[in-house]
Amino acid sequence: MTQNQGPTTFPSEDLLNRVCWDEDGLVAAVAQDFKSGRVLTVAWMNREALRESVGRGEAVYWSRSRKRLWRKGEESGHVQRIVELRLDCDADALLLKVEQTGGIACHTGRESCFYRRLEDGRWVATDPVLKDPSLIYRK
Amino acid sequence: MTQNQGPTTFPSEDLLNRVCWDEDGLVAAVAQDFKSGRVLTVAWMNREALRESVGRGEAVYWSRSRKRLWRKGEESGHVQRIVELRLDCDADALLLKVEQTGGIACHTGRESCFYRRLEDGRWVATDPVLKDPSLIYRK
Repeated sequence: MTQNQGPTTFPSEDLLNRVCWDEDGLVAAVAQDFKSGRVLTVAWMNREALRESVGRGEAVYWSRSRKRLWRKGEESGHVQRIVELRLDCDADALLLKVEQTGGIACHTGRESCFYRRLEDGRWVATDPVLKDPSLIYRK
Repeated sequence: MTQNQGPTTFPSEDLLNRVCWDEDGLVAAVAQDFKSGRVLTVAWMNREALRESVGRGEAVYWSRSRKRLWRKGEESGHVQRIVELRLDCDADALLLKVEQTGGIACHTGRESCFYRRLEDGRWVATDPVLKDPSLIYRK
């Protein structure tokens, strides 16, 4: 999965079967910027989302709130191209090393969704908004 | 949370209330090595685990399999000292930047739990075992 264009590999059923899907058919999926190492997002994948992610070479998640596949960047353009995909020891979490289009992963217009830091007993928004969300999500 | 010794801060109820616990009272917690940036583990916290993590300055998780608090390193000695704690935009995932005692986070004796990589359509264990688990978990 090192090419610039997907689809790269169509995943086998065996590959998907080796993942320990939870009772809702999901696993946690962490996206990390492959250059900076910054953790960008934590989202969810079901079997179909992983299948499509591997096939396209881009992150596709399962939106628990919208109850549908969520092709990351489908509205914002902020696609996550998968550079490397890893599975953890319990096979119930995935790590995606990604190239983050636009350098913005968060719907608030920030680089990372983890923009709040614990400081003096409070969650403090420490990271700058790089782009006004109203300019990202035009309807 | 930059001292070497906990406890550092006793978290307020307000701090805990700002986290969106799921229907099981849990959130995903990603631990990342604060120096190398390597993602080490994905685990779970409930309210009590977060309270204790902040209080001790060390990662305490909720073990879904054992259904009890899991003070990371309680058997292995591989404690995760919290250097920084972050909350994501939806407040349903935590990011811990940690100093990983022993340089081993995984129960298999590897640095990271994410030691399997997708290669040619298969999950391949690519990372070395740094210490025999039988030497880590002596009963």
